[in-house]
This record gives sequence, structure tokens and C-alpha cells, in this order.
Amino acid sequence: MPSSALAQQPTPPQPDLTRRLAKLTSILDVAKAMSAERDLDLLLPLILYEATKVVEADRCSLFILDRERNELWSKVAQGSKNEIRLPVGSGIAGQVAHTGTIINIPDAYADTRFNRSFDVSSGYQTKTILCVPMRDANGDVTGVIQALNKLGDLAFNAEDEELLLALGAQAAGAIENALLHEEINRLFEGFVSASVVAIEQRDPTTAGHSGRVADLTVSLAQALEHQSTGPYTQVRFSATEIQELRYASLLHDFGKVGVRENVLVKAEKLYPHELEVLRARFQLARKDLQLQSYRRRFEAVKKRGDSALAEIEAEETERLDTELKHLHEVFEFVLTCNRPTVLAQGGFERLTELGHLNFQDDAGQTQPLLLPREIQSLSIPRGTLSADERREIESHVEHTYRFLTQIPWTRALRRVPEIAYAHHEKLDGTGYPRAIPERTIPVQSRMMSISDIYDALTASDRPYKKAVPHTLALDILKKETQNGQLDPELFKIFVEAEIPRRALKHAPK
Amino acid sequence: MPSSALAQQPTPPQPDLTRRLAKLTSILDVAKAMSAERDLDLLLPLILYEATKVVEADRCSLFILDRERNELWSKVAQGSKNEIRLPVGSGIAGQVAHTGTIINIPDAYADTRFNRSFDVSSGYQTKTILCVPMRDANGDVTGVIQALNKLGDLAFNAEDEELLLALGAQAAGAIENALLHEEINRLFEGFVSASVVAIEQRDPTTAGHSGRVADLTVSLAQALEHQSTGPYTQVRFSATEIQELRYASLLHDFGKVGVRENVLVKAEKLYPHELEVLRARFQLARKDLQLQSYRRRFEAVKKRGDSALAEIEAEETERLDTELKHLHEVFEFVLTCNRPTVLAQGGFERLTELGHLNFQDDAGQTQPLLLPREIQSLSIPRGTLSADERREIESHVEHTYRFLTQIPWTRALRRVPEIAYAHHEKLDGTGYPRAIPERTIPVQSRMMSISDIYDALTASDRPYKKAVPHTLALDILKKETQNGQLDPELFKIFVEAEIPRRALKHAPK
Repeated sequence: MPSSALAQQPTPPQPDLTRRLAKLTSILDVAKAMSAERDLDLLLPLILYEATKVVEADRCSLFILDRERNELWSKVAQGSKNEIRLPVGSGIAGQVAHTGTIINIPDAYADTRFNRSFDVSSGYQTKTILCVPMRDANGDVTGVIQALNKLGDLAFNAEDEELLLALGAQAAGAIENALLHEEINRLFEGFVSASVVAIEQRDPTTAGHSGRVADLTVSLAQALEHQSTGPYTQVRFSATEIQELRYASLLHDFGKVGVRENVLVKAEKLYPHELEVLRARFQLARKDLQLQSYRRRFEAVKKRGDSALAEIEAEETERLDTELKHLHEVFEFVLTCNRPTVLAQGGFERLTELGHLNFQDDAGQTQPLLLPREIQSLSIPRGTLSADERREIESHVEHTYRFLTQIPWTRALRRVPEIAYAHHEKLDGTGYPRAIPERTIPVQSRMMSISDIYDALTASDRPYKKAVPHTLALDILKKETQNGQLDPELFKIFVEAEIPRRALKHAPK
Repeated sequence: MPSSALAQQPTPPQPDLTRRLAKLTSILDVAKAMSAERDLDLLLPLILYEATKVVEADRCSLFILDRERNELWSKVAQGSKNEIRLPVGSGIAGQVAHTGTIINIPDAYADTRFNRSFDVSSGYQTKTILCVPMRDANGDVTGVIQALNKLGDLAFNAEDEELLLALGAQAAGAIENALLHEEINRLFEGFVSASVVAIEQRDPTTAGHSGRVADLTVSLAQALEHQSTGPYTQVRFSATEIQELRYASLLHDFGKVGVRENVLVKAEKLYPHELEVLRARFQLARKDLQLQSYRRRFEAVKKRGDSALAEIEAEETERLDTELKHLHEVFEFVLTCNRPTVLAQGGFERLTELGHLNFQDDAGQTQPLLLPREIQSLSIPRGTLSADERREIESHVEHTYRFLTQIPWTRALRRVPEIAYAHHEKLDGTGYPRAIPERTIPVQSRMMSISDIYDALTASDRPYKKAVPHTLALDILKKETQNGQLDPELFKIFVEAEIPRRALKHAPK
């Protein structure tokens, strides 16, 4: 262990000792700062900055070992921006990673191991190089740190080696933590997305809806940053609040897993099998009319004798024709009523009258031709859902909330359930499920409402209605703000900042 | 910053400086070890051990600040085992947390701040106390470390204060990392469990199934530890492998979200609406028989004259009665066939004959009384599912696999998809979906198969079969091992280690 070795060396002259003490102390300070930094994109520059300082180099770079691919990769060689990948064993860094031994080169251009191509392409002039392995707590190499050009035209000395090794050891732990943190976050995020996709697949017309609502809502939240007037001037969302909003948006419809598919995708007022049963009843009624007709013929013969046969047949044939035509016309009317109605419409009063029509079933019992619940379904003034079915669809918000409150959210994400819970509330208190008043609806939920309605309108056709073009969707949203249902300020920003164009890959025009 | 202060002090005599350098170096070593330890239950003892060593104390304790409850909590006061909670502000530790200032007491019993009750109850004799705050990278207090009884009957000195502060600063970062790690893992785990519960609710008879399969399988895996003979003597699962197995088990049926509810909960061979349509067709056929009868009567009168009326009526009434009885009997037979059959049974040949029966529909067209697909459904020899429906149910494994492979599992959990994918495979190659041979079925999947079948058998009634008692379930599993489908060694351990009794709260008897 190099750092312990430091303590076992013969006592050096005192000024040297004091300087080492100061440097060790500063490494301790850096170790503390590093352990608190879990964002790799901030951690790596921090390490490089401190490494440069501690060994008094001109610049440093850091390579992380990818064991599976047996490569070193780097996001931040100081002075370069792209990710670099090197095979382990090749070049000075690759060799240090392979052997685990320090390489200290006092004169790069005199050393055969040095590859000038980087200098040639960058115009930088490498003079001295110190490259040390980073080791984890088990002593395994996890990367290398490389310092270039000791200041004052000196070579890197033994103390530099020890200090860079010590710093590298602390850095290794911090990098491992940051990578693990990133890994688990990616796992969580990936699981959330995949489960949302799986649930959306139950209703193909909503595929991708949750992701788009998340993109739109986050984009709207970010657009608030640029507001210098209006009620949302002071509202800013931190990175974790944006993440919270994103999860709330992604998961707002998760509760649809608790709604039956046939309700989710209901395309007409009667379910296909309900219509099939109704059709069969009309067939039975038709058969009944025929039977009645032949019964009457037989009875008429009994009464009027076989001389009246032709007359009876003519009378009854005409009557039966009229009755069958009427029945057919009623069925055609039922089919018309069964279609979804986008805008409220009347004409359903006749259904109530038709409720009085009867026929005799196969056992001779009088039965209504249209059942009360069929008349109720066919009379739905808008869309295809009965009151019960609408309640079932709307219950998805309660399911979502119950689901989300079961999850042990971290402190930073603790408002996810609350934000998602209010995405169908309206500012005028007419929303669901709680019909809460304006002041209790979080701004995040208000933004999500706008995104949710916009996407529901513009996304692909739904069974009960066609997709609506962008401008018409904005008109409809505008009406809802004028009705006092949606937040007019947020809607204004949604329009002015062109959120759909900004947030969606395939924004409708 | 105390550690920087250390460097700015006037130069002390050299032996002192060397000792400090050694101590700082050892703190750096500890910092590295701490940053690699993400399990709080291992990290805290490590910190205490090092703290005790660095300030040469008899023992140490560590308290973490719970900001929301404004309390300090401790899992490991050395010498005690339970979690202790203290209000911030009370006692020496509480005061340090409150003020952020060091308390160094050279003689506890002479100090009014000292509370003897702990000594009284434990029999320990506190002499000297050093209590320092732990601060995070922002400088906020996140806890305190308390050292008791400096060795050699000395008081803690200024150097001890500085070193304990420096150690505490490193510890603070490591503890924060460990807590965060725990928090995200809990979040992920909570999300997985809640989503599994949400999906299981679509089929109420399977509620809790996935959790029980996970408990059974993990318990079986752990029982392998104690095997000293047989093929699984060498097989041991690490903590992360157990976690991988648990996730694979929890998620093995996740793909059921892609199977339609009506198939999942199908209770008879025909769906209720199919039976309703079939019933309506029989009514129509009945009406048709009546109509035919009256038509014949009318035609007969035409031919034989009204003198034969009574005779015609008698003949036709008898014929109609016979025909209606036969139709009724056919429908009763259909109802019998419609019930689920647990064991394969015959008697369905008659259905094929009945397929030749016809009637005239309302338009006078000849129609079959039983449709080919109805005959096919009613002829299902076992259970209630048609071949297509069985394939749809079985497709859940493919859905599960597709879902799981979309998730960016961490390295430690990377085999989750593969393990879950094989849970319906059989050792004799007759399983699904891939019908892979024995040697390619992971041992984890083999264990899961046993748990899965055991729970499916013994858990609450399913629509198509009753719950089976424990011993009968074992008999059925035994038969499957004898058929060469399940792993006999694993089944032996499942029985001998009494896995169900061990793993399940409400184990069936």
C-alpha cells in the first residue's frame, strides 16, 4: 500500500513533512467532496482538478476499466470532449491498467513507450508523464490516472507517485459509487418504462401516450424557467423535481391495469356480444311473427273453412310483410343508435317508445324486444360509455394513486403519488376523482392535464374518435381554459413555447 | 475546516508530525474502505472500529441525524444491539448535533451535562467523553461520533478532536452513500412488488402467487446450502444470486399483463356470451320447429281439407312435442359438455354427430344448430381452454421474457430474464415455450418450476379447479418427477427441508 509506505519511510526533513501533511489533508478534503458527488459527469472533472493540483501537473486524464470489454474508457481527458476507448495493454495507460504498476516518464520523446500521435493531432507538447493505477478496496485495478507535464519543467517524483496513488484510491471508491448509483437509477427507470409500455399494450390506441405526456410536461416545466412575467415567474423546478414530475407523468395512467380491456377499448355503445344477443332476439322475434302468422292462418281456416284459404293466405302474407318490415326498420334504427356519438345528440326518445315492443319467446312468454339496459346503453348521449363504464374508466386515477402510494418513494420523489392523483382535476372543481378546488391542485398536475388532453386529442385514432390535428387540439384546449377548467397561464406558455414541437419527435401539425 | 486547520498550525515537533501523518494516512485507508462498503450494517461497525483506534478510545458510538423527526438514531452503540433514538438537543450527543460544536469532557462524573443512567443500567463506567459532529460535503451536520474513555486514563486532546472530526467527515459521506443505496434499492423493490400485485389483481385467483413462488424458491435455494450429498452439493448461491432469483421468481408471471382477462379467468369451455348466443340460437330453432309445424298444418289443410283438422292437429302436436323434447335434450347435453373437465374424458364424439343438426333461420336459410368452433370448444378434453387459448395463456412466458429483456439489469441481476424464461420448461424437453433439453434449463428455473406448480395447486380455488391439499400436491409433483419432468433431487430437498412450511405464512396442511 503506497499510502502506508509513506508513513514507514525514514523521517524526512521537516518542511517536506509539513508539505506532505498539507497534501494528505487536502486529499482527505477531496475524498469527502468526491464521496458526496454521485453524478459521474461532475465527479470526473473534480478528480482531475484535484489530481492536477496535488502533483502540480499541467493536465490530467482518467480512464475507467471496462472489465467485460477489456478496455479503458474516458469521458474526460482534459482538453478533449468525446469518450475515448483504449484496449487494455496498449499505450502507457493501457499498460498501467494491465500491469498495475506505475509508469513515470521524465522525458516523453526519449521514451519508446510514448506514442506521439496525440501530440501531433492536438498540438500539445508532452514532456513528462506520470501514470498510476486506481485500485478498489479489494486491491483490483479499476482504472488509471495520468498526469502530464509537471510544472516548472521538472520530472514527477516519488512523492507525486505516492500522492497520485492515494488520490486514485479515493477516486476509485467514488467512481464505483457513482457508477453503481447510475446503474441502479437506470435499472429503476428502465423497469418503470417497460412496465408502462406493457400496460399500455392492453389498449393499442394509447401506445406511447404516457411517455409523450412525460416529455410534454417536463418540457412545459422547463419552459417556465424563461418566464419573466405572469404568476409563474417565481416557479422553478430543480433537477430532482423535474425527475419527480417525469415519474408522475410516466405513471399517471398506470392504474388502467385495473380497468377491464373491453371497457378500455369499447368502440360502440353495445359490446359486440351484446349486439349479437340483441340480433339473435330480433331473429327470434321475426320467427315469432312468422309463427303467429301461420297460427292465425290455421285458426282462420278452422273458423272460415278451406274455401277461404287463398283469401286468408293473401291477408296474412300482406300483414306479415308489414310486420317484418317494421321489425327490420327498428333493428336498423338500433344499429344507428349504437354508433359512437362524439357530440351530444338527441333522437334517442324513440328508443323509450320502442321499449314497449314485445314478442313471444320460444316458450310462448311475452318478452320485451329491447331490454331496459340496452335502451340505456343505446341512449348514451356522447361517446360509447355508460355511466358505470365511465366510472370504471375514471377509477384508473384511484388505482394509480393506490398503486403509487404503496411505493416507498425516496424523499426527492415523495410527491409523485400526489401529482399523478390530480391529473384529471379541473380548476373549476368539476374534475375527478375528488373534484378538488383550484388552490389544492399542484401546478405539476395542471401542466400534466394540458399535456394529457393534448396527447389524447392528437395521438392516433381511438376506437370512439378520430385523431385531431394540432391546431384544432389547441382550440379545444383553449375552450377548456375559457371554461375555467385548465390553467390559462400554463396553456399560454404551452402554446407560445411550442411545447409539442419541442417535446415530441413526431409532432402533429 | 478542522483538517485544513491542522495544516495551518505552527510547525509542531517532528515525532508528533510523523504520528499525525501516520494517522492521517490511516484515515485515508479507512476512507477508501468505507466508500466501498454500501451495506450500512457492515459500514457502521467499520467506522466505529476505526474511530476507536484513531483516538485510542475504549469504545465509540455513532448517531445518525433523522432531520424529519429531528432525532438521532443509532443501530450500533458498541456494546448495545437495538436501535436507540434520541431527540436532537438532549444529552451530549443531542447537543453536539444541535450546535455542531465538539464536546470534550475530561471527567464525566464531574460534568453536569453527563447523564449517568446509561452507566447505571449497563454497569459501564464512563470517565472521558469526546463527541464530535459528522458533517456532509455542504457542511451540514448529519450525525455525531462519540468516543468514551481515552486509553491510559488520559483525557482526549486537541489532536483527537481533529482526527475524529476528519474521520467523521469521511464517515458522513460513506453513510450518506449507504443510506441512498438502501433507499433506491427499497424504491426499486417496492415498485417491482407493487406492479406485480397490480397485475395479479386482474385474475383474483392468483393473488399473492408471485410473492409465494419467490419465497418458496429462495427458501429452496437456501436449503441447498445444507446438502452434503447429491448433485447439488457444490451449488451455493451468493446474496446477489439469491436476489436475482427472487426478482426472477417475483416477475415470472409479469407477462400475464399481455393475456386477455377473459382467457385468464375462463371458467367454462364457452365464454358466458358465447353460451348466451348459443342459447338464443336454440330458442330460434325451437321457434322454427313450431313454425314448421304450423306451416305443415296449413299445407295439410290445403291438401286434406278442413275435415281433417282435428287429425292434423293431433299428428302435428305429437310430432312437435317430440322434436322440442329432442332439442331440449341436445341443449342439456351441450350444458354438460360446457363444464370444465379436470381429467381427460371422452363422450364428446356425440358432439360431432350433433354438428349435422340444422334449423331454418328467420330468413328461411338452413343453418347449423352448433357451429364448428362451438363443437371444438365443447370437445376440449381437459380444463376449459381451447388450443388457441392455451397458447395465449402460455404466451405469458414470452411476454415475461420480452418485458424482462427490455430492462437494463445490473451485472449482478443480469440473469433474471433467462431464469424466468425457463420456468415452464420440463427436464424431458416437453415444456414451453422453447421445449429446451434438460442440460440447458438453469437450476434456478428448475427450483422455480417446483414452487410454481406447488403454489398453483395448493393456493385458493381457481375457476377451473379446486385447491388441492398439501400432501396431494406433493403426490402430483412426485408423479411429475417420476415422469422425468421435474428435477427429482430438488424435489427431494423441497420435501425433506419442508420448504412450504418454512417459506409460507399460511402453509396448507
